[in-house]
Amino acid sequence: MKVLLVGASGTIGQAIQQELAPDCEIVTANSSSGDVQVDLSKSESIAKMYDAVGAVDAVICAAARGVKYGDVSELSRQDFVESSASKLYGQIDLVLQGIPYLNPNGSFTLTTGILNIDPIVGSSAASMVNAGVEGFLLAASNDLKDGKRINVVSPALLEESLDKYRDFFPGYPTVPASEVALAFRKSLFGNQTGQVYRVGRSFV
Amino acid sequence: MKVLLVGASGTIGQAIQQELAPDCEIVTANSSSGDVQVDLSKSESIAKMYDAVGAVDAVICAAARGVKYGDVSELSRQDFVESSASKLYGQIDLVLQGIPYLNPNGSFTLTTGILNIDPIVGSSAASMVNAGVEGFLLAASNDLKDGKRINVVSPALLEESLDKYRDFFPGYPTVPASEVALAFRKSLFGNQTGQVYRVGRSFV
Repeated sequence: MKVLLVGASGTIGQAIQQELAPDCEIVTANSSSGDVQVDLSKSESIAKMYDAVGAVDAVICAAARGVKYGDVSELSRQDFVESSASKLYGQIDLVLQGIPYLNPNGSFTLTTGILNIDPIVGSSAASMVNAGVEGFLLAASNDLKDGKRINVVSPALLEESLDKYRDFFPGYPTVPASEVALAFRKSLFGNQTGQVYRVGRSFV
Repeated sequence: MKVLLVGASGTIGQAIQQELAPDCEIVTANSSSGDVQVDLSKSESIAKMYDAVGAVDAVICAAARGVKYGDVSELSRQDFVESSASKLYGQIDLVLQGIPYLNPNGSFTLTTGILNIDPIVGSSAASMVNAGVEGFLLAASNDLKDGKRINVVSPALLEESLDKYRDFFPGYPTVPASEVALAFRKSLFGNQTGQVYRVGRSFV
């Protein structure tokens, strides 16, 4: 199985590589390293990446950048627009442009996160972005033809990120990235579509 | 109760007016008619509207424009960006800028629709937009202070729109706009926040 892994250098991306390496040929894409480079906020950059990589059996996106945090009374429309460029429109664009490169019965697997279900203080833009991706998911999964599938992995707070984000996620249970990576295996090797795999626990 | 009703001239907006007129002072805002005019896709236009209207006890948005439909294989990033300008960012901006004008314990009530839960063919942009608004909702409701509240009304296919949209919504049960208007009364006169009121039936 040939897999395009966008965001391979991140914590989740590395765990996915470790999980899939034994039975997949992985092409890595990052903003400034990897087999190919891509800027998810730019359609032309995504087009160039697909042109370089060619046909694949799976596209994974574990990249997430540029989402703004702040109290709802302090954010502006522009903050929401900028928060969408990569994680919302970038991931959707990866699907839109990836359809002709995806082999029949292949899969797209995108990444969101817990914040639309269990928001933290000041997360209204992140919550909108995650929910937007998940809203796109079901309609897109129905539209796709030739057995092409799409799922979303929504991780709780990563164990590996606890030190950095502890103060922003008070009382949130953590999940190791290796377990999050399992959900990508489920999406790629299973036959489900239109599903959100929520990995890790939450109190809501 | 002084209510700013954005999108007053639409089918739902008219039903809301009829429902609330007996016990509210309603200021109507439309794109080209009403007490004040507003273009939800422009922050400056929203700022001007609030400046003209002043303090209110409730802000309702029943306006929805410019969402694109098409098979997921035929849509572009630009279609998603344009679909967001009014119904996603416009409604969010109405909240962001409205907070200082909303009296304590006042409410925002936005409108989405059934398509993120029960998508039709080619609705991936509409589904993203609706889900995005609903994702924003919960985080925003937690961030709001001074008893200020926010809810969303998500109507099924309107009885009044059946003739126009019948072919796009095969087998969707309809709901009269008068019943949708009840959900706005619930939001304004109740004390709930962070809720999505789904009005009308769906088979999913």
